[in-house]
This record gives sequence, structure tokens and C-alpha cells, in this order.
Amino acid sequence: MLGVCYYPEHWPEERWSTDASMMADLGIRFVRIGEFAWSRLEPARDRFDWTWLDHALDTLNMAGLQVILGTPTATPPKWLIDQRPDILAWDQNGQPRRFGSRRHYCFTSPAWREETARICLIMAKRYGDHPAIVGWQLDNEYGCHDTVLSFAPHCRSAFQSWLERRYGTIDRLNKSWGTVFWAQDYQDFAQIGLPHQTVTEAHPAHRMDFWRFSSDQVISYNRMQAEIIRQHSPERFISHNAMGLFHDFDHRALAADLDVITWDSYPLGFTDQRMGLDEATRARLATSGHPDIAAWHHDLYRGTSEGGRFWVMEQQPGPVNWADHNPIPAPGMVRLWTLEALAHGAEVVSYFRWRQAPFGQEQMHAGLLRPDGVPAPVVDEIKRLQHDLRKLDLGAKTSAPANVAIIADDASHWIYGIQPQGMNFDLKALNFAFYSACRRLGLNVDVLRPGADLTGYALVIVPSLPLLPKALIDALAGYKGKVVVGPRSGSKTREMQTPPELAPGSLQTWLPLKVIQVGSLPPSVDRSVVWRNKRYRLAIWYEHIESDLEPEGHFDDGSGAVFHTGHWHYLAFWPDETFLLDYLESIFEELDIETMRLADSLRLRRLGDLNFAFNSGPEALKTPAPDGANFLLGGDEIEPRDVAIWRN
Amino acid sequence: MLGVCYYPEHWPEERWSTDASMMADLGIRFVRIGEFAWSRLEPARDRFDWTWLDHALDTLNMAGLQVILGTPTATPPKWLIDQRPDILAWDQNGQPRRFGSRRHYCFTSPAWREETARICLIMAKRYGDHPAIVGWQLDNEYGCHDTVLSFAPHCRSAFQSWLERRYGTIDRLNKSWGTVFWAQDYQDFAQIGLPHQTVTEAHPAHRMDFWRFSSDQVISYNRMQAEIIRQHSPERFISHNAMGLFHDFDHRALAADLDVITWDSYPLGFTDQRMGLDEATRARLATSGHPDIAAWHHDLYRGTSEGGRFWVMEQQPGPVNWADHNPIPAPGMVRLWTLEALAHGAEVVSYFRWRQAPFGQEQMHAGLLRPDGVPAPVVDEIKRLQHDLRKLDLGAKTSAPANVAIIADDASHWIYGIQPQGMNFDLKALNFAFYSACRRLGLNVDVLRPGADLTGYALVIVPSLPLLPKALIDALAGYKGKVVVGPRSGSKTREMQTPPELAPGSLQTWLPLKVIQVGSLPPSVDRSVVWRNKRYRLAIWYEHIESDLEPEGHFDDGSGAVFHTGHWHYLAFWPDETFLLDYLESIFEELDIETMRLADSLRLRRLGDLNFAFNSGPEALKTPAPDGANFLLGGDEIEPRDVAIWRN
Amino acid sequence: MLGVCYYPEHWPEERWSTDASMMADLGIRFVRIGEFAWSRLEPARDRFDWTWLDHALDTLNMAGLQVILGTPTATPPKWLIDQRPDILAWDQNGQPRRFGSRRHYCFTSPAWREETARICLIMAKRYGDHPAIVGWQLDNEYGCHDTVLSFAPHCRSAFQSWLERRYGTIDRLNKSWGTVFWAQDYQDFAQIGLPHQTVTEAHPAHRMDFWRFSSDQVISYNRMQAEIIRQHSPERFISHNAMGLFHDFDHRALAADLDVITWDSYPLGFTDQRMGLDEATRARLATSGHPDIAAWHHDLYRGTSEGGRFWVMEQQPGPVNWADHNPIPAPGMVRLWTLEALAHGAEVVSYFRWRQAPFGQEQMHAGLLRPDGVPAPVVDEIKRLQHDLRKLDLGAKTSAPANVAIIADDASHWIYGIQPQGMNFDLKALNFAFYSACRRLGLNVDVLRPGADLTGYALVIVPSLPLLPKALIDALAGYKGKVVVGPRSGSKTREMQTPPELAPGSLQTWLPLKVIQVGSLPPSVDRSVVWRNKRYRLAIWYEHIESDLEPEGHFDDGSGAVFHTGHWHYLAFWPDETFLLDYLESIFEELDIETMRLADSLRLRRLGDLNFAFNSGPEALKTPAPDGANFLLGGDEIEPRDVAIWRN
Repeated sequence: MLGVCYYPEHWPEERWSTDASMMADLGIRFVRIGEFAWSRLEPARDRFDWTWLDHALDTLNMAGLQVILGTPTATPPKWLIDQRPDILAWDQNGQPRRFGSRRHYCFTSPAWREETARICLIMAKRYGDHPAIVGWQLDNEYGCHDTVLSFAPHCRSAFQSWLERRYGTIDRLNKSWGTVFWAQDYQDFAQIGLPHQTVTEAHPAHRMDFWRFSSDQVISYNRMQAEIIRQHSPERFISHNAMGLFHDFDHRALAADLDVITWDSYPLGFTDQRMGLDEATRARLATSGHPDIAAWHHDLYRGTSEGGRFWVMEQQPGPVNWADHNPIPAPGMVRLWTLEALAHGAEVVSYFRWRQAPFGQEQMHAGLLRPDGVPAPVVDEIKRLQHDLRKLDLGAKTSAPANVAIIADDASHWIYGIQPQGMNFDLKALNFAFYSACRRLGLNVDVLRPGADLTGYALVIVPSLPLLPKALIDALAGYKGKVVVGPRSGSKTREMQTPPELAPGSLQTWLPLKVIQVGSLPPSVDRSVVWRNKRYRLAIWYEHIESDLEPEGHFDDGSGAVFHTGHWHYLAFWPDETFLLDYLESIFEELDIETMRLADSLRLRRLGDLNFAFNSGPEALKTPAPDGANFLLGGDEIEPRDVAIWRN
Repeated sequence: MLGVCYYPEHWPEERWSTDASMMADLGIRFVRIGEFAWSRLEPARDRFDWTWLDHALDTLNMAGLQVILGTPTATPPKWLIDQRPDILAWDQNGQPRRFGSRRHYCFTSPAWREETARICLIMAKRYGDHPAIVGWQLDNEYGCHDTVLSFAPHCRSAFQSWLERRYGTIDRLNKSWGTVFWAQDYQDFAQIGLPHQTVTEAHPAHRMDFWRFSSDQVISYNRMQAEIIRQHSPERFISHNAMGLFHDFDHRALAADLDVITWDSYPLGFTDQRMGLDEATRARLATSGHPDIAAWHHDLYRGTSEGGRFWVMEQQPGPVNWADHNPIPAPGMVRLWTLEALAHGAEVVSYFRWRQAPFGQEQMHAGLLRPDGVPAPVVDEIKRLQHDLRKLDLGAKTSAPANVAIIADDASHWIYGIQPQGMNFDLKALNFAFYSACRRLGLNVDVLRPGADLTGYALVIVPSLPLLPKALIDALAGYKGKVVVGPRSGSKTREMQTPPELAPGSLQTWLPLKVIQVGSLPPSVDRSVVWRNKRYRLAIWYEHIESDLEPEGHFDDGSGAVFHTGHWHYLAFWPDETFLLDYLESIFEELDIETMRLADSLRLRRLGDLNFAFNSGPEALKTPAPDGANFLLGGDEIEPRDVAIWRN
Repeated sequence: MLGVCYYPEHWPEERWSTDASMMADLGIRFVRIGEFAWSRLEPARDRFDWTWLDHALDTLNMAGLQVILGTPTATPPKWLIDQRPDILAWDQNGQPRRFGSRRHYCFTSPAWREETARICLIMAKRYGDHPAIVGWQLDNEYGCHDTVLSFAPHCRSAFQSWLERRYGTIDRLNKSWGTVFWAQDYQDFAQIGLPHQTVTEAHPAHRMDFWRFSSDQVISYNRMQAEIIRQHSPERFISHNAMGLFHDFDHRALAADLDVITWDSYPLGFTDQRMGLDEATRARLATSGHPDIAAWHHDLYRGTSEGGRFWVMEQQPGPVNWADHNPIPAPGMVRLWTLEALAHGAEVVSYFRWRQAPFGQEQMHAGLLRPDGVPAPVVDEIKRLQHDLRKLDLGAKTSAPANVAIIADDASHWIYGIQPQGMNFDLKALNFAFYSACRRLGLNVDVLRPGADLTGYALVIVPSLPLLPKALIDALAGYKGKVVVGPRSGSKTREMQTPPELAPGSLQTWLPLKVIQVGSLPPSVDRSVVWRNKRYRLAIWYEHIESDLEPEGHFDDGSGAVFHTGHWHYLAFWPDETFLLDYLESIFEELDIETMRLADSLRLRRLGDLNFAFNSGPEALKTPAPDGANFLLGGDEIEPRDVAIWRN
């Protein structure tokens, strides 16, 4: 089903009914509104103007549209900041951030928590049972613009209390952190500052705990909103829109307080932001995006939600304004992205935004309508899509079971952010490389959080989890399939220490090997890995292993690079794309799982009994369907930027 | 005529008469002095030392030299800063900038305005009718070192007043800016801060108005100085020295308060600063500079001044100290640059500086004399030049009428600075590309400010003016020639909004097309434009156009890229050098204007009945003169870094 | 002899005796301890815990190990910072740096000097005559993490007093600095601020004096510690561990207050930090380091110490944690580096660190033991090395006399840091290029500080000394050998002015030439120098020379580039590697000094009657020994990463 993000407050009231009927005509079912409207809802303290919102809700309702109402906390208005300046977040330089854009609040601020509770309660009471409203969105894109970490004075005292709760005594903190290093011992929790503006890097355990604390602040802030809304708006779902390529807080913990998690999908902007891709590749993909970039996030967020429910709350409908370069999506891509999201299990795909605003920071961000209110070219794609969707009846389908699961979490990103040990070590790129290889081989993939049930998977991949939660170890203990473990897994304890038994830590139960040295490599280095007589380029990361196992692949210096024993596999290096395709292909072969090497721009996805093939490239391609396939969409050849669908 | 910048206070008094007679012997007529001398004129408040300046003026006067005296406000002395620290400018981080270099004052500071008026009045009264003095320079290089924007507390209150004058009511400001976006509404002008240190980019209308305000502060500050000097120094001209590649304030408004505008020409330093040139091109041009870089500024500043009067106040005479790399100009270039400036209409070319200082921040900046007082090698070039000039009698010549005018302003640079939308979109490079193409075709070019009279031009080029002032639209309404309009023109309203009718805004009167989508491109992208069956590389920027016009050129996806109707032409993309040469050549052909494809390093310029050909390259070239031309300088072949001149 | 750095406070007390006996078994003689232990020695003011240190010293002593005890001042503990926050250094932005890493103190802080004296006195009294202790290390790596310059309020007043002592009167300062430039005159020392946060660069003389002042603060701070320790710990040597690629203070002055200077050798990390090497070269050398990088520092620090005594206090034993990329050293390199240090005259090579810490900022820094206490692979290399050393008896050897001396100091780095004049002008790379060329030619090289005795050298090279101290001029006056002088030598006076006689200043006594113009070049420029009919690439820097001498080499524009007269040679450009090899080879030929062109990765070193050949490359190479050489180690071929030694 389709949705759209709408800002009635940006347009003349007399236009609203036109907009609503245009939406309905386009087959849109859901409309998100209100998440940046505080200054129009409460122009001054306790002076509320509900009229316009009442009218907007009624207008949408009358057109048969269902509303997701946002709490407006991402943009506290100026009068509020002036009254309570301790709402503001402080930056790493120890200065308050200023009003004038968005997300200027500090999650920890007691004043801000009070004001948040106040506005949420008022809105929940007023609109909690409004017939147009089917759900809520809390705030907007927590953490966007680097706002998870704040360095305000109240953060410092809250962090001290958090530490005291965690460690009980200062001696225990000193021991857990290892403050003996560089005489960093504390005598009292009240001495502990925030880890910024130090001469060289601050203590890694200090930084890691501050990140955990900061993530906890996001979670508890969100929970506070959720509890208020839940109490006063029964039977409405509660959601938040997470971001792409973003890991600054624990999304699994956040999702636990939501009914449905949603995410904001901007494939071109994400592709422009590197992901380990070189300049030529990014240029080649500039108008289509990387063929796995949206899919990765669909699978990631589906696995973040307890029940697998997710929406795309913001779907890029044209060029955006915020990447370094902002090309126009190739014609067909918006339809393709939408079908792809649905094929990955999205309940709803909602476009951001209905109509391009002529003003403000996002005036160069396309909408479904142009700034002059005329439908943008993309509307024809959506009409075609609606036509397709009527043929498909996706509503009842659930994902076909995946054979392979990739395990990823957020905290690993904090750990490598604190200790990259090589400036090219970007976990986002490493996770993505494993994911992309599986997808190039034509497989459905689940992305799981550590601790998820592993039953039924033939292969579990741990690209790199430095910290292995007990829940994961427990799940692995009962798991019978194959496991591929990537470098640096199990290399840290909870307190950012090297484990006494060395990496891969507790995985040594199954993988009898120890990482005794690690190396990171500068660009242009000419090193290689040899596996099954084929040479692969070695870059970024490698490890020296102590083990009685006979390696099945070697570095150019003869030391072991690829290990396995029974169902367990270990890669002691950052694998490149070519290696991963060959290696995973061989593993799937052992598992009797059929794979195929898809063209660069071709991807497959199975949903229920349907097979989707997506061609995001500029050339027509042969559809990888069996002879005589029963096509619901397309046929033996897929046009550029097009989709074919056939039933099993 | 030639001039020089001189700092008598840097040298022993007994040397001055030697310097003066050396200047006179070299044919120098004008000497600029005094613009950094405050600490020597007023060593402590109200304790003045005029003796040395009196003596210096007399010495120069006795040698027959005419003086331009500078007001010394670019460098307020330490005692003054200590007495009135609120003179200081504040940086974007909200901290006062410190004493110890130059331009540390804030244009808005009330204390600074008082002190400026005081010193100007005293100097004007004392020297207003001194016989040596023929003109004044106010301050020095307004805005240099990023000093137009200041974030001091007094800036905030002055900005609030400026906004109140502009908008009258806060509601009108909210509506004009579009503060409804992200709940940025204000209830009172007193709430509005300066647009810095926000979480993400500040509101574009807020930023644009702050830039306008800041530009206005420069203009009113300069006007205050001009009025004081004008009152007390009758019959002396008033000038200021503007910079190259610099647009942070409105130079047209500044020039309106001056008698003559001057600019500071450093071709090698400017070429080192990119201008859209790749590394190899910059390396090739390292010792000659780009052949259009000085010419562009001559034509720009000639068009900035109401009456077309301009000087080069500082001409690079050797290596400088401030660019990333500072090569020695190839022998001959200083003479070439001087003749080129005169050919473009400069009244005077004044070298910076007479003698290289052995101390201070610019001790590595060459002068006509070496630090030891001996003439530098460049002096021989100037002697040769004087010899040339005696043959030419340029004094009475005015520029030959140009067939083509390029329209450019400063505010467009602020707009694209605020909203580049693609990180490579550098308007300086785009304007320069159009200019350079016309010059490669052998034409004289005028650079006009919007609103200038367009009568007589066969072609008007608008490379990219996002905001179209009414005066320009009026001028175009009466204009009968051809117009070439580049991308993003007419894409903004005065309040940094997208115009309701979309780009190109009011140009749609003549160009029946609408820009419905825009895209920016990452480097290395492989896109193209096809025009007249030839393929050109597409980079940086492209637009999708809605129009009933049949495009005459297309993007590789088949959509229209080049449009024209009647005398109006529109380019929906950033044109590369090759395209511009072909395209403009064809347009000039239609206009029956003769062009020629000059070699890379060759340029032509007509002044009165004289034709100048400049060869800035390392190889001798055939002079592009008609057979049997009447050469005043040179002949059928131009030596490297040399000039040929012939009469029509 | 070998040593190691040990942190007993990081490990359980019951482990210490195991560690001590493992050290002894490995042939280690010296152990450095204590330099980061303040928080464990004095957990709260005046509450001392000596027990553990007593025990550690006794444990080491009993194993026959000799201890170098560190004063723990590099890491003042939190309680101390909280009591006396004016200990903190302030950064360039005018903000105090925060506790949480190391080196957070300001050398100038009066409070810090008091506290330093207090802890040093207490420790010296307690341990001054402890039988285990043979020497002291004062503090740790002065200046690391950019900590020489501090901008605290007390720095400002101390700097003013320092200036008053230096100049006596403010007039003299004004004249010496040249404050007349840009009206920077002062009326009183109390007006002078620190040179930061200025609008553009601060006055170069101001910056240079602030750097001198800051260096003096390091020296006097160290001297204070030295005097206290010397008084209370007779017959123990006093040392400090200097760094590689680091010149922020005057190391010669520091060494004058020490008995032995030591330095910390991390060849891979240094090679990763550019040194003028391109990316491909750095990649090639990633696991071996540049073959001259450690040698350069050995020779530099040997020449820094009055009597030529030096140690390597920290020798990289495996991958480190702090470079951009941190590869594992190729097997054999640690042994090679150790033998190389000894061949260059190091008395002791001490590994950093004994056992890799599992916690803290350096948990990814390898030790001789792995974090789990098991010997790392490098231990086998050290065992082999001990076996080698027993055959060699190096103890009594002193360096074979070098024929060539390179003169270098620290202040030149400050000067070029303040006025690079071309962004690629990195003196570290220039000095290194000359050094490396001599080493490629097979020679022993001494690196001398200006003023050192030059007797006995056949060739003295001055790569680039902008400021020529009188002691150097005096030494040169009596010197009879050849001198090669590189660009920019003699280009500055003590007050950062151009000398009245121009560069090369007082060297004009012997070199009758003047530098009348200088140029710096952008990358990719295609310029050349021709010498003896061979063309060499010109990059980075070139000069135009006025002289009656006939140049023996020319730039491509025909002007002189290579000059000589008698025994004096001048290079008016930045020489590239190829030129230096050819040019120096010809000079050595004239001097009848035998040279050989060694392979890229091969180096020679003579110590006493021993010849060492080091092959740091990946291929076996022929040993450059005479036929029938008497090998103590190796033979006619040197394996990769191996060493051959033969007796003369």
C-alpha cells in the first residue's frame, strides 16, 4: 500500500481538498502529517491553534485517507528555546547549538523532557481517538545531523548517575574500564567528565559507555513519548522513522517500544555517500543507486522489528537536496524502488513528500507534485505502479523464508568508530559487501539482530561483531547450520577490552583458533589471498591466526587466511567482492542451495509464491525465470529500470 | 599610465628621495600610500605624528609624482582595540577575532564607525587639499580574509533592526521567508539570531538576508568614509581597491559611492585557486596564469563602474606569498599583463609594491625593487613597456564597442553559496567558462551588471542569474538582440523561494519553458549532450524541461537540453568548454559576427582603433592580424609572453 | 643491549616475577617503568602508595634487571586537575583542553611547575639510591599530540615577560619584528597577545618568538625536573624519550640537560605519515618501513647528544595503534631494526612494550607478549637476535668516522611551518632526501646540529637552514672540506626578516651569489633542471640567482640552478632523488670517496671494524661485501628482511 508525507500548514487551506482528492485518485491510503508543526499548533506557550489541524484531518478523512500524526518534537519552536535554553544540545566543542534548523534539542535535558511530555499529552488527549488517525509517528529521524551525542552540563551529571547505576562503585568502574592506563583513575563518579576535547583520543571504555548512555537517552526519550500516546490513543499504532546508513543508537531497543518501525529510503543520496564504492562505481550508479542499497535496509529493518513489520515512511520520489550531488532518478526507478520495498515485506511505501515546498531548507527536494502543484513526471510511474499492484494482491504475502541470515547490530559501529585501527575500516561497507554478494547470487537474505532465532537458516553470516552478546552465543549453541565469521568478530569485551582469550572470544568454542596479530593496510598496497588456487586482492584488514587447523586459504606470506572446521568458517581478512562471490557460492553449493550469478544490476526477491526480478541498470536483461514462467508482470526480458514478476 | 604602491614608513627617511626619483625615472606617475599606517600616524589616542607623512608627500610631490592617499582603517592599531574591544569582528564560532594581522574590525560595530569617522575627518582636514594628492583610497580590500560576515552581538541587534525595516511586521517576515518550514516561526524581531552554529544548515532566506545585511554594512561603511573625504577634499577622486574572484558584497552598490573603482590583479595566485580548472591545466598555466583571468576582471570591473572607469591598483610584479603555490611569473608576463589591462580600458596600472619588505606577513611578496633596494628583474620589463607605451598613446582611446555582453552580479554567488545543490556548482567557474569561450573566439566582451543598458549588443549572455532583478527584465524587454540563458537562471525569488511559475521565472515571457526538475552529478559520471550530431560531455548540472518547443539538443536520455525560440536561447545544463566554443560560434555566425578560434594561449582585444594580440604561452605563435597589418608593436609572429599591436 | 618498557601496575602482582624471569631469559637488561603511574602512586593528595612500586622494583632487581624509573608527569591525575585546573593546556581556539587522555598540562603553568617539583622531589628522595635503578626518564615524549604550544592566560603573561627580557624596550621589539607592517606596533609589552585566532596569519616574528618561548618552556621545565632528580639520585643517568618526525622544540638544548637522549622508533607508523613519499611508495614500504627512516633518527639523535650517547627507548615490536594504517611488520624487521640501531651506535634498544594491554587507548599496540601473556611471534626474532649479538660483541664499538655530515636543527622547521611559501615545502622531506641519497650511495652519515665541530668531514651538507647561527658560520670558517648548500639557506634573520644582503646571507662570504627571487610550484608541473646534459624533474621549489659564477646546471628557462666555486656548492632548487644520487656521487668521486649504488632496499653501516648490510626488501640480494669477506653473520646473499655482518 502507498502513503505520502503531507504538510497542510505549508499550503493555503483552500488547496487541501484538491490535494486530498488527488492523493486518493492516485491510490494513496496513508498520509503522515504534523511532525514539524509545533510553531503552528502552539504559537506561544499555552496558546493553541487546533483549527487548522482539525480541518486538515477532516479533509483527509473525508477523502478516505488514513492519517499518521507526528508528535512535533523534532522542531521545538523559538519561544520555547528562549524560555528554556537548557533544551539545547551542546556540540563536541562545548558550545550550545543554536536555533534555526531542526533537532536542536538534547535528549537528556530535564527541561526538554518536561516540555515533550506536555505537548505529547495535549496532542494525545485531543487527537487520540480521532477517526482519521490510525497511527502516530514519534518525533522524526532521531539522531539525524549527528544529534545523538550531546555535551551539555546536564549530560555530564546524567552520565555520572548512569555510570554509578552501571558500576555501583568507582573501583569497579576503574577496573572495568582499565583506567590504570595513563593514570586515568577516578576517585568519585562526580569527577567523570564527558569524553571530548581531550589532548588525544579519550579512553575507549569511557567513549563506549558515553555512547551507550547516549543511546539509552534516545530510547528512554522515545519510550516516554510512546507511553503517553499509548495511554491516550488506544488502538493506534506507534512508529518512528529511522534512517539509512545510520547506527548511532540501538535500533533494536527502540523498536521494542514501537508497534511498527519505519525507515526513510533515499537510494541515490546513500549511494553518493561512498559505502566503500569507488568514484567510478558511484558515478555509474548515480541515477539508479546501488542495486542493494534499499534492499539492505528493508531486510535490516524487517529484522529490527520483533514481528518483522516495517514501512518505508519516506521514499525518495525524485532528486533530493542533501547529498553532495543530487541527480534525477532514472525514469522507472521510483516504481522499481516501491515494488522492491513491497517485495521485501514493507507494509506501506510512503513518498516524501506530496508537493515540493518552494521555501525552507528542503526547497530543492522533489515531491510527487511540483512546487506549482502540477504532478511531477514521477506521478505517471505511480499510476503505472497502481495498475501493477492491482494485479498482484501483495497484501497477504509474507516473505519467503531466507536460507541465509546476516547478523548485525548498532553497537559494533560505535566500537569501530572509537577504534577503527585502520582509516578505511568502515563496518557499513563490510556488512554491505557480504549482503551484496548473497544478493548477487540470487538469494533472499534476512538481516538479524544478535539473539534472534536462527532456526531454519542454512547459513548464518557474522560479517564482524566485535562484541558477542550472550544471546547470540546461546543462539549459536543451538544452531545446526553453517556459520561464516568475518574478521574482528569477538575481539572486544563489553568494556572495550581485548578478551583474555583473545579474538574471536567465545566463538573459540566452535572455532579453535586465536587472532594473535592484526594489520590494517594503506591504499594501493599489493597484497593477496590465495584460495583454491585463485588469487584475490587483499586490502584494508588482515589477521595472523594461531590454530591447529589447516588453513584452506593463505595470505601471500603463507600464513593462514581462510579457516574452517565442521560447519564453522572464519575469514581472517576483509574479503573483496570477487572473493565473496566465489567463496559464498561454494558454501551454498555444499549446502545444496541453488545460486545464480546475476548481472551487476539485476536482483531477485521471493515473496510468498511470487518471484520478483529487478533490473536497475540501463540495458535490457534476460529475466532469470524458468522456461514457461507464469509472468504477472513483464516477461522474458526486463527493460531497463523495470521489474518482472512470476508465480512459482 | 603606471603607478605603484609605496610604504615610506617601512624605510629610512633618507631613502625616500632616491625611491621617488627612481619611480619617476621608470615613468611612474601615481603612488598609493598610507593605507596601513595608522599606528605611525596616531601612536596613541590623539597623539598624532604627521611629520613623516608630510615629508613623504613632499618628497613624492617634488619628484612629480601624484599621490593616492589611503584611509588607514584596514588596520586599527592595538591601543584602539584595547580601548574599544567591541570593534572586533566575531567569527562563525561565536568568538571575537584577535588583533595581530589585519581587517579585525566589524563593519557594524558602532564604536568602529565612530573611530572611523574620527580618523577620516582628521586626515581629510589635514590633507584634503594637499597638492600632491589627487585621490583617495578608502580602506583596503573590503572583505579580504572572509571578513564581510561578522557574528558579534551588535551584529545581531543591527540585523534585527534591518529586518524590521525590510519587513515591517514579523508576520510578513515569517511569510516571506517561509518559516513555517521546520517550525521556524518568529513572534518578534528580537527573537531572530544570526544564522550560525545551527544543527544543520540554517534557513536559506535567513542566510540570504543576513548576507544582504552584511553587504549593506560594507556599503554604508564605505559611504560614510566617502562622504567625509568628499566634503573635505574637493576635486580629488575617491576609490577603493576590490579583489579578484571575490563576490561577498555588492560591488555595484559600492562603486556608486566611488569616483573610480580599482582592483588588485594577481593572475598567478588566482589561477592557483582552481576556477574549475583541473590540476594539469593549473600546472601548465602556473607561470603565466590563465589567459582570461585578468581580462575577466578588467571587463567585470569596467562594467561595475557607472562610467566605465577603473584602475588596476595592485598589479602582481613577481611571485606573491599568499597562494598555495607561488611561482615566479614567466619573463614578459608583467609587461603583458600591464598592456592587457590598458587594452581593456584601465586608466592606470599600479604595481604592488615598490620594494619588497624584509619583514611582516608579506615579506615573500615581490616588489619592483628587491628587499635590498636593487631593481628586480621585472624593472627591465617595465622599461621596455614604457618604451612601447610612448609609441602607442593609449590615453585617449576608449574600448571598441563589444558585440557581446555577459551579465553577472554578486548576489548570485551568495545564493549558490547557500544552496549549491551540487558540490561542484561554482558560479565563478560557470561565468568564466562563457567569458573564456567568447574570448577564445576572438571577441571583445563587456561584463554588465543586471539593469545595464543593453542597446547595441548583438548578443547578451546570462550564464546563470537565479534572481532576476526587475531592472534586468525591463532592459531585456526593450532589447532586440539574441539572448543566451544558462541553467538555474530565474530559479529564485527575492526571498530565496522557488518562483510560483518555476524557473526560469519571468524569463518565461520570452522563453516558453519550465524547469521541472534539476540534477547535479558526481565527478566521473558518463553522461552526454548531443547537439547537431556531436556528443559533448555532461557534467555538474542538468535540468528537465517542460516546453512545447522542439529542443535542438538532447541529453543522452532523449530529453531536451538546448532550446531556442526566436532570439532567445536556453541551455538546460552546465556547458563544457568544447560545447560553448561550437555553440557560441554558431550563434555569432547567425549574427554575422566574425570569430576565429584562437590558440589556447592567444587572445585579442580591440581598443579604439588598435588591435592587441597577447601570447601568454611558451611558444611563438602566428599573429592573427590581416595581411599587411600596420604593426605598432611586434609583427607577424608573436614571441612567447609577448604582445603584438596593429592599427585597424 | 636490550631493554623493554613495562607497566607492572597493569598486571596482577603475582604475575610480576614470571614477567621478570621471562625478560631475563630473553636477554633483556633494562626495564623502563613508572612514567604513567601517578594515579597509582598518589591516589589522592599526599596519600602515597609506594608498596607496589617497591615490590616491582625488588622483583625486577632480583631477576637481575636494571630499571629506568619515569617521573609520572605526562599524566597528572584527575584529583590534581580538579584541585588546580590551571594546570591544563589551552588549545589554539582559546579553550582549555580536558582531562581524559595524556599530556593535558601546560609547560608554563606555575601551578603545574609546583606540582611537578613536588612529585619529582618525593620520588627522587624515595628512590634516588634504590639499587635497581640505574637511570631516570623525565616525563614522556614532550610535545606529543601537539602540546608544545599552549594558549592559556598564564602563557600570555609569561610570554610578555619573556619578550621584555629579550628585547628590553618595546621600541626594540617593534623594530626587530617589523611591526610597522600592517600597523602592528605595540606601546607596551602588556599589550602583546598570543598569535592565534587572528583574521589572517599572525605576524611571522610574533609567531617565531612564541615558538621560541614555547620551546624554552619545555627546556626549563625539563631542567627543573633534571635538577631535582640529579640532586637526590646521584650516579643515575637522566634521560628523556624524544619522538620521530618531531621538531616542535629545541632538542639540542634539551639534550644539554640530560645524560643520555633516547628516542622512540616506529618505522611503519612514520612511513605511513608521508615524508614526501607518494602513495605507491608508501604502500610498497608498508610492512618494512622506509629503509632510511629509523637510521635517519639514529644519526640525528646521536648528533643531538653532546657525547653521541643515545638509546632507542621504544622500539616498535609489531603493529601499532596510532597511524592511519597499522600493518604487521614483515617477519624479520624487528630484529633488523634492532641490529640497525646498534650499528648506528644505540647503547640500548628497548621494546615498547613488554605485554600488550587489553585496555586503554593503546590496547591495539603490540607488545613482546600478547595480551594473554603468551610470547608474540616477535619473541623468536629476539631470541635469534640474542644469538647473533653474542657473536658480535658490539659493546665496545663506536661508530666508524663518517665522511659526510648533514646539518639540521629544529628551529628551521618552525620557520618553514610559519612561512612555507609553497604548500609542499616540507623540510622533513628535504633533509631526508639528502640523507637518503648519501645512504643509497653506501656511506655512513653524521647528522649534526649547527655549531658542531666539522673537523674531519670530507663533505658537509646544509640541506636548508634558513637561519644560520653564528656558531655554524664560525665552524664553517675553519672548515676545509666541501660544502653543499641547499635552497632557502640563509634566507632569514633571527627576527624572521629577509637579511639585508639577501639569501644565502652570511654564506655569501664563500658563495658569491644572491637569491633574488624564489618560486614554489604546484603539483604536476612540467619543469626541469639540466645538469651535465641530463634532465631532472623540477618540483616544489626553485630560485633565481644573481651571480658572476658560471652555473654548472640550468633550469629549463636557461637560468642558473647549480653553482659551485672552490669547495662550495649551491643548489637553487629542491633536488629530486635522481638528481641527488648523480650529483652527490660526482662530488664523492671528486673527494675520492668510494660509493656504490645500493638497491632500493639495501643499506650499509660501518661500526668500528664491522660492516653491516641490511636488506629490508622482499627479495634476497647479493651482499655488497668484498670477495672473501669474513662474515660474522650471513653470507654472500642476504635473505629478505635480513642482515649480513662482516669484519673489515
